[in-house]
Amino acid sequence: MKSFAIIAPDRAMRPAIMERIDNLTKPKGSLGRLEELALQLALVQQTLTPRLSKPANILFAADHGVIEEGVSVSPKEVTWQQLGHFAKGGAGINFLCEQHGFRLVLVDAGVDYDIPAGAGIIDMKVRRSTSNFLHGPAMTVGEFGLCVERGAEVVDMVHADGCNIVSFGEMGSGNTSASSMWMHILTGIPLKDCIGAGAGLDTPGVAHKYDVLSRSLAGYKGSDSLVERLAWFGGFEMAMALGGMFRAAELGMIVIVDGFIMTSVMAAAFALYPEIRHYAVFGHCGDESGHRLMLDAIGARPLLSLGLRLGEGSGAVCAYPIIQSAVDMINKMDTFAAVDVTKYF
Amino acid sequence: MKSFAIIAPDRAMRPAIMERIDNLTKPKGSLGRLEELALQLALVQQTLTPRLSKPANILFAADHGVIEEGVSVSPKEVTWQQLGHFAKGGAGINFLCEQHGFRLVLVDAGVDYDIPAGAGIIDMKVRRSTSNFLHGPAMTVGEFGLCVERGAEVVDMVHADGCNIVSFGEMGSGNTSASSMWMHILTGIPLKDCIGAGAGLDTPGVAHKYDVLSRSLAGYKGSDSLVERLAWFGGFEMAMALGGMFRAAELGMIVIVDGFIMTSVMAAAFALYPEIRHYAVFGHCGDESGHRLMLDAIGARPLLSLGLRLGEGSGAVCAYPIIQSAVDMINKMDTFAAVDVTKYF
Repeated sequence: MKSFAIIAPDRAMRPAIMERIDNLTKPKGSLGRLEELALQLALVQQTLTPRLSKPANILFAADHGVIEEGVSVSPKEVTWQQLGHFAKGGAGINFLCEQHGFRLVLVDAGVDYDIPAGAGIIDMKVRRSTSNFLHGPAMTVGEFGLCVERGAEVVDMVHADGCNIVSFGEMGSGNTSASSMWMHILTGIPLKDCIGAGAGLDTPGVAHKYDVLSRSLAGYKGSDSLVERLAWFGGFEMAMALGGMFRAAELGMIVIVDGFIMTSVMAAAFALYPEIRHYAVFGHCGDESGHRLMLDAIGARPLLSLGLRLGEGSGAVCAYPIIQSAVDMINKMDTFAAVDVTKYF
Repeated sequence: MKSFAIIAPDRAMRPAIMERIDNLTKPKGSLGRLEELALQLALVQQTLTPRLSKPANILFAADHGVIEEGVSVSPKEVTWQQLGHFAKGGAGINFLCEQHGFRLVLVDAGVDYDIPAGAGIIDMKVRRSTSNFLHGPAMTVGEFGLCVERGAEVVDMVHADGCNIVSFGEMGSGNTSASSMWMHILTGIPLKDCIGAGAGLDTPGVAHKYDVLSRSLAGYKGSDSLVERLAWFGGFEMAMALGGMFRAAELGMIVIVDGFIMTSVMAAAFALYPEIRHYAVFGHCGDESGHRLMLDAIGARPLLSLGLRLGEGSGAVCAYPIIQSAVDMINKMDTFAAVDVTKYF
């Protein structure tokens, strides 16, 4: 797999940044998470005046072989139908991107359908759907590496256009199954606690999903290599998002992390490149069972908890104005020194 | 006290609104709180296409007599200094209002300072500071009623300008003390659990605050009337915000509720006009000890929890983009009937 130079931001500026934040005209610490975000962004960008530029939501879509086991309430055709729908506008992610000024970049990572050219969807298709991981690897390690490279390539594209903050979304019927497997592998949390209702399974449906996934886990025949295990149970859209996250951090961009599926991808990123955590902002804790457990396991505190379980990057994009507030705070607020207000702490 | 005609929105449209929301191209319920907000706004506005218009944050400032007991870390002069600072821009609430397109309306409700005319601050001053409620009523019932009327008047002003969604902010050194008293009176939660650090008291400071407030409570000599008790321990800015909330609900406006202090005001509003809850959106659960307890006691679920404890309306204004998302969702998303996507639930 391609390697990335992901390093922690230089901490030398930290005292100067903290002094600036602590001298803004407010009780110390009274802007809570905004202050933490301002510090994080200032460190990543190595400046007292961080900026957000051309936010983008890169949405990778792919199909999952395991869906033939009946683990999802949404049929496979929904993946390509929704991808086309995103391209025309009118889906959930479209109004959110429009509201917050995000460029929406759509990528076919491995949809089981011939997406027509000229539809505004970038063709990065590895192949039409992963294989069913109940019977063997979803993808080869080579395909996994290819996904990582292609995801990085898409980030290069938005970065070249001036983007310095990116979120990743996904569309792929069945991908909460793959994410539950990643969560289990990465955190050691019992598989049962990693599984939820996805787009809307009932209780017997969740029990069946657990049965299929536990048999899949038992059937693993690869090595101890983390990458091989991620490839075996992964999705093309997940592996591409992983590569995108790596490249974004390497380029010094902020990565806003969406819901359950993207949290499992960032958990994989934490395992492979621990310093990537400096670049990550967790947007939303969703309703998918296990999401809160996974966030806690990796020490992540999301900004929002609105009960979203749509995917597409929606939870990440919704969190954007809070990050913008943090940047505005440090750039626009006066310091006590500049105005006639008694410093009161 | 002036009375208000605050009635629950007609529920007849509810099935039509729910049908619309449930047929948007997403798994049913997958936009969580956005779906609940869209329903609330559609009912309040009695339309399938709710709109937000000219949001305003009305910030009432006043001083508190009880501050002479040493219950606050911020000296009294901070109230007028910060009010002047808001008028010039550069404070916390300024960048948030600018970011989210809010008009910031500044009102002198009872600041202990001669605010110069022409500074952009509306003069609604009742008098210079409430009295010290350790020794008697902070204000008379007559003054309380005057505040309610004046708060309503300010809301009339923004409503006449086309505003249909309003938040209320406050500035007043010592006002967490008054709010703790209101919280105790309104919820019955033991006074000790209603008291926190305010702008930054240390542990002995909080203990002293508790001592002062419990002696004040013991010294109450008025009747059982809720209004008399609220007047005895209240603040001019709190009573004006109360009147503003009443009038906003009467006019069919949405009220976004800020942090600890404004939650105590809305708790008073719930007690006096229970139907006002249909118009309230709770923006933020802050860090002030007791805020979560009070929210739970009145059945409120705030949208955000970002550790803010600034006041000024900051937590309410920060929540605005989420309300905007709810409105965009119902207006801009396609229904399954309109596009070629299999309805998958």
